[in-house]
Amino acid sequence: MDHFRRMSALRRKMHRAGLPGLLITFLPDVRYLCGFTGSSAALAITRRRARLFTDSRYTTQAAEEAQGAEVHIVHGAPAIAAAQWLAAQPGVHAAGFDPARTTVAELKRWKSELPGSLRRSFLAELPAPFVEQLRMVKDEDELTLVAEAALLGCRLFEGILGLLRPGIAEIDVAAELEHEARTLGADGMSFETIVAGGERSALPHGRASVARLPKRGFVTLDFGIIHKGYCSDMTRTVFLGTPKPAERKAYQAVLEAQENAIRAVAPGVSCAEVDEAARGILRGHGLGDAFSHSTGHGVGLEIHEPPRLGVGQRTLLVPGMVVTIEPGIYLPGQFGIRIEDMVAVTRTAGQVLTPSPKALVEL
Amino acid sequence: MDHFRRMSALRRKMHRAGLPGLLITFLPDVRYLCGFTGSSAALAITRRRARLFTDSRYTTQAAEEAQGAEVHIVHGAPAIAAAQWLAAQPGVHAAGFDPARTTVAELKRWKSELPGSLRRSFLAELPAPFVEQLRMVKDEDELTLVAEAALLGCRLFEGILGLLRPGIAEIDVAAELEHEARTLGADGMSFETIVAGGERSALPHGRASVARLPKRGFVTLDFGIIHKGYCSDMTRTVFLGTPKPAERKAYQAVLEAQENAIRAVAPGVSCAEVDEAARGILRGHGLGDAFSHSTGHGVGLEIHEPPRLGVGQRTLLVPGMVVTIEPGIYLPGQFGIRIEDMVAVTRTAGQVLTPSPKALVEL
Repeated sequence: MDHFRRMSALRRKMHRAGLPGLLITFLPDVRYLCGFTGSSAALAITRRRARLFTDSRYTTQAAEEAQGAEVHIVHGAPAIAAAQWLAAQPGVHAAGFDPARTTVAELKRWKSELPGSLRRSFLAELPAPFVEQLRMVKDEDELTLVAEAALLGCRLFEGILGLLRPGIAEIDVAAELEHEARTLGADGMSFETIVAGGERSALPHGRASVARLPKRGFVTLDFGIIHKGYCSDMTRTVFLGTPKPAERKAYQAVLEAQENAIRAVAPGVSCAEVDEAARGILRGHGLGDAFSHSTGHGVGLEIHEPPRLGVGQRTLLVPGMVVTIEPGIYLPGQFGIRIEDMVAVTRTAGQVLTPSPKALVEL
Repeated sequence: MDHFRRMSALRRKMHRAGLPGLLITFLPDVRYLCGFTGSSAALAITRRRARLFTDSRYTTQAAEEAQGAEVHIVHGAPAIAAAQWLAAQPGVHAAGFDPARTTVAELKRWKSELPGSLRRSFLAELPAPFVEQLRMVKDEDELTLVAEAALLGCRLFEGILGLLRPGIAEIDVAAELEHEARTLGADGMSFETIVAGGERSALPHGRASVARLPKRGFVTLDFGIIHKGYCSDMTRTVFLGTPKPAERKAYQAVLEAQENAIRAVAPGVSCAEVDEAARGILRGHGLGDAFSHSTGHGVGLEIHEPPRLGVGQRTLLVPGMVVTIEPGIYLPGQFGIRIEDMVAVTRTAGQVLTPSPKALVEL
């Protein structure tokens, strides 16, 4: 990972914003910038120096992992030590913090621990999410890891198909999938595995339950793994038994919407346009109301990151972004269908990172 | 779960604080108060009414789960709708929010969506964490679930012992443990499973890695499951091969510290006293500096909850609290040892919920 390049890009943003200091406390941001993966950390950055604050549980790990930042072990809250250090740096008259990642209570506490003359104005709300904006566009190292994570997800899906049959409990499917993920070397799952059969497939977030898969009906599998810190996310909906014509038609409508949205992905296209590419198709099939969420979201160090692919989202796609495309329909009391791929934005189009087949699988 | 009683207890707190409204956005608090487990929710509470705001993904689930609150499906952010609803209730001139669970950006946004005359003063910072204080003392239903979760953890530990041998990868141990957890019906793991062998046991947070267990040395297992929403947490350290006298002595010191802290648990005792009961013993063995974290923490709907059992923590133990007792020592380059139980505070003492043996296991 080229943490030095990331830190340089951040310093250019600081320079443009006229900001001499930055206080980073959101852990995925800390990891992105300096590589440290511990659960307690604050990163203080000036134009010339960077210092990582953590506690003594992480003495060894911080020394091994942190790049481009001096490590400083503290007893109290790392963020307070970081704010105080920034305030003591020559020429640093203000430090930005991310208001979306700082609680009202934290800010109050940080301020109260600064010298009196600095309490009012030293800590400055960043007008836009600085690091999140950098993270939205993945560099080559990250694209490699995200693609590896996605492929690992596909292998899991293909392995689990043989297990799906009427009567098996959803959680047993999830357990097997998660076991296999670990065996293949995943750090863990990126979110709670969704296995939802029959009527439960109509729950968009149907976490695997003790319910058993039905004799016939749709089964939705939505899961992701974490691979060297990077998340995968994919969904497939399969059918146990033989679908009725109406069920087959509904599946085709979702697939058509999903593939149309993938085709819409290209640099310069807005997130709302990609969303509409899926939504319009479903509307045309009379299923507009059954599609009750956004078309997708960014994915990387976090399972949900910017951009969001939804109605009104004006962010333009840029090469290096990685997003999910996951339209779905939910008919309570009947069934639900969702199909999801991860897609990387290239210089010309969208590249699918999760190539598992999408033609309706009948088991 | 007696959500109505919890809501009544909360309303008594509101009454005492002279607060006519409350805006709850922290998901474990929402779940605690009304039973809803979805990932998008805000709960608005007045002296007489309560309304749960969520989005259309959760229409079915909210109708099934929510107790003691009307359900309202919204298109935008649930918290904004909840704040606006509170502002429109007769007699509600202010609503409290939890500053520790509200970001600077959220608060700004909520305020901006209120009528102009209410922007400055309608939303009021709660002086103390209202719901967290209730949650700190578990009711009977919760104690049952926490105890079940803890016992499930013990079964997992005892099952995994047969797998520990030189050469097996830490992640394979974790995978097997997590698979078994799912098979036994756990909702998932409550945190990333720690399996750390040999020198890696000196990392207090040594997540299971591709490293293989050594021919001889300590192996620390720290893991927890989620059972019907409630977390378990336990640690055992075992030895592969035959320990040297110094290793055996170090283990005995940690065990003595851990058992002394358990004996210190009783209503009216401060968290700092329990911490000192462990810390003092280790200091006596010349291992004070090697014990680099707190003695324990509360556990319930979250894996880490108040109270914290550490230096200077003045909170007094009360019957119904459930805490971990987990002193450890970490000698970088050599080894680490941690022993952790979950302990419920009864009317007279501490009751261990994780009865797995603690005498040093040699494998």
